[in-house]
Amino acid sequence: RIDPARLVSRVERLGKIGALEGGGVCRLALTPSEKLGRNHLVAEMKALGLKVAIDPIGNIFGTRKGRREGPAVMLGSHIDTVATGGLYDGALGVLAGLEVIATLNDGNIETDLPVVVAAFTNEEGARFAPDMLGSLVFVGGLPLADALDIVSIDGKRLGDELEAIGYAGTDQGPEEVAAYFELHIEQGPVLEDEKIEIGVVLGVQGISWTELTIRGRSAHAGTTPIRLRRDAGLAAARIAAGVGAFVRALGGDQVGTVGAITLTPNLVNVVAEKAVMTVDLRNPDEALLQAAEAKLAALIEQIAGEEDVTIERRGLARFEPVDFTPALIENIDGTAKALGLSTRRLFSGAGHDAQMLARIAPAAMIFVPSVNGISHNITEYTEPADLANGANVLLQVTLKQALP
Amino acid sequence: RIDPARLVSRVERLGKIGALEGGGVCRLALTPSEKLGRNHLVAEMKALGLKVAIDPIGNIFGTRKGRREGPAVMLGSHIDTVATGGLYDGALGVLAGLEVIATLNDGNIETDLPVVVAAFTNEEGARFAPDMLGSLVFVGGLPLADALDIVSIDGKRLGDELEAIGYAGTDQGPEEVAAYFELHIEQGPVLEDEKIEIGVVLGVQGISWTELTIRGRSAHAGTTPIRLRRDAGLAAARIAAGVGAFVRALGGDQVGTVGAITLTPNLVNVVAEKAVMTVDLRNPDEALLQAAEAKLAALIEQIAGEEDVTIERRGLARFEPVDFTPALIENIDGTAKALGLSTRRLFSGAGHDAQMLARIAPAAMIFVPSVNGISHNITEYTEPADLANGANVLLQVTLKQALP
Ligand SMILES: NC(=O)NCCC(=O)O
Ligand SMILES: NC(=O)NCCC(=O)O
Repeated sequence: RIDPARLVSRVERLGKIGALEGGGVCRLALTPSEKLGRNHLVAEMKALGLKVAIDPIGNIFGTRKGRREGPAVMLGSHIDTVATGGLYDGALGVLAGLEVIATLNDGNIETDLPVVVAAFTNEEGARFAPDMLGSLVFVGGLPLADALDIVSIDGKRLGDELEAIGYAGTDQGPEEVAAYFELHIEQGPVLEDEKIEIGVVLGVQGISWTELTIRGRSAHAGTTPIRLRRDAGLAAARIAAGVGAFVRALGGDQVGTVGAITLTPNLVNVVAEKAVMTVDLRNPDEALLQAAEAKLAALIEQIAGEEDVTIERRGLARFEPVDFTPALIENIDGTAKALGLSTRRLFSGAGHDAQMLARIAPAAMIFVPSVNGISHNITEYTEPADLANGANVLLQVTLKQALP
Repeated sequence: RIDPARLVSRVERLGKIGALEGGGVCRLALTPSEKLGRNHLVAEMKALGLKVAIDPIGNIFGTRKGRREGPAVMLGSHIDTVATGGLYDGALGVLAGLEVIATLNDGNIETDLPVVVAAFTNEEGARFAPDMLGSLVFVGGLPLADALDIVSIDGKRLGDELEAIGYAGTDQGPEEVAAYFELHIEQGPVLEDEKIEIGVVLGVQGISWTELTIRGRSAHAGTTPIRLRRDAGLAAARIAAGVGAFVRALGGDQVGTVGAITLTPNLVNVVAEKAVMTVDLRNPDEALLQAAEAKLAALIEQIAGEEDVTIERRGLARFEPVDFTPALIENIDGTAKALGLSTRRLFSGAGHDAQMLARIAPAAMIFVPSVNGISHNITEYTEPADLANGANVLLQVTLKQALP
């Protein structure tokens, strides 16, 4: 069994790095505060006797040797956050990995296969798109050179930011992964609603992110007749409102979000000449996700015509729904039940590094409840008992996979 | 007659201060670049022999003595700009005033009444609301202490910014104004469309500015079911789209603009917890403007309910339509015609310092054409011949008013 108090202390200590006044944390990927988080993590890994490797995209791997060389059992997630994030999203998976290592160390348990704790770069996608970027590069889904050239929302090149914080590594991650497990908070309301202790994750829904750049003409708000306007702000508002409307009309599991809108010059008495906005569409069903994307495309065309603006589209992320590995799903479900915990199988609404690892290895995830289903919010919270339950399941599935 | 080349050179020289790459200028009120513009103006005034006074709200007055003390004929406007402004909006009225002074000096013409050139603080309202703030304080429409406490869009106190640029003056402006004339570019398409050289301005339409602060709850864009969301961004978009729709439906002279929308945290995968936006409504008819305001109020209430968000309203500016002084209107029209220029009477769509001066003195305005009717845009342009026409009318109406 893991040490519940020690696990909570791990979460609290990392949570102090990038802490916001009023609660929560801001450790946007590759910023100075995330660098401090990385330094803390590397120090903790070394203190546990792990061999630390940093790869060229800044993924951090801490390896505990097994009796033999060979494919590793990997426990991972991420330590970057959104700008107004909580202490658990991502951090839990990495820190529970360390707690598993600490428990193995305490018991002098030698595993057959190596056990690796991994923290992947820029999982959130809040600063650099796409999300799950570090794990995507690790599995070969995005060429390193392309990833290094991605530009952040604050106009910085990823490669330069990686150099700036000293995490442009020269090591390689594990060559082969025997199994990948990721413990994560649910970030949604299902487990809490149904009073379930462990979520057994079947897969991750499809994700489609688009950035729109709308160009109109700046003009005087008092003197410019409506019929002569080319109002980029009005076009952006109509698209955002239209996304809200078609998502409601589609119903089912479809979700859609316009989280970012930036107008230029953004002044009370100037018709906006430019608007940049993002659209996040998700659905567990690829065909339905494509149907929502078609709605968006039609909406863009309609508004561009009606408001006499040009609209440029840029894909920021597009991932099809992913199914996790049945054998690992069974392992997690059986293990949790054997520990006396209630379980439920469910799909993930959020993207996770596990969906990238699933491209190269057996992969699965363990969810624990989120209070009020809230995440990407400074009030994100998970009860200590749930943290411990999740980490204990992670320990047991790791042992099953890594012992002979 | 004024010197056309010298007038153009005045416009070009001030236009270099705060010049943007690609054209246009940014001299937002009380910023370092506007300070340089003020310094330039004060130096030019002194070179023309004017006595310079700076009042406590930073209005700049340059006085040319008359044969006798007494009420002054004032020629004014402003030198602040929006963030993506042109070279003519405001600057023309002040610089044509200097050109009138230079012409009087050249001819050794002594006027009976003093002639004052005025540049009022923060006319644009782009950085601090309300617009026409300096002239409003000058005419006693807003207590100085309240004005100094106004906070800018970048979070700075007006009084502190005034101190920082060294323009918190201790002088008083002219005690009595015999007549106020403001030469300005039209900023709209009417004069150019109708090939008219001089616009004789009858008044200014009513202006209603409101800032809305919408508070919802930040949440994960992938995991949060639509029915559980309190999406401040969606509420903002629906209000902005709704303003666009009701303004089109009202038709007539009604205009409405949402020029500014700022979401927090403004990230692709986070439902916005907060949105701050502005609504600019204008109509030459007070009753119709109130009807539009009622539409806005109903829209806000509807969206707040439907999106489960709170919406706080703050009035940024509210000015009823203003009529200019008939005698001065006739003076301008007759003078322009006597100079062989075509004229047309029209209402102003933009707010102007003249509408504030009209509260304490006879006031009127002269418009010259704007190419393509474009303003609050870096491509704002007025032909040199039109600049000269306007300044010549300004010279002649000044002489009529200031000579015995
Ligand atoms: N787990 C998580 O919040 N991932 C961020 C990527 C996303 O789903 O938007
Ligand atoms: N003339 C001018 O552009 N004034 C700014 C105030 C406004 O009308 O919005």
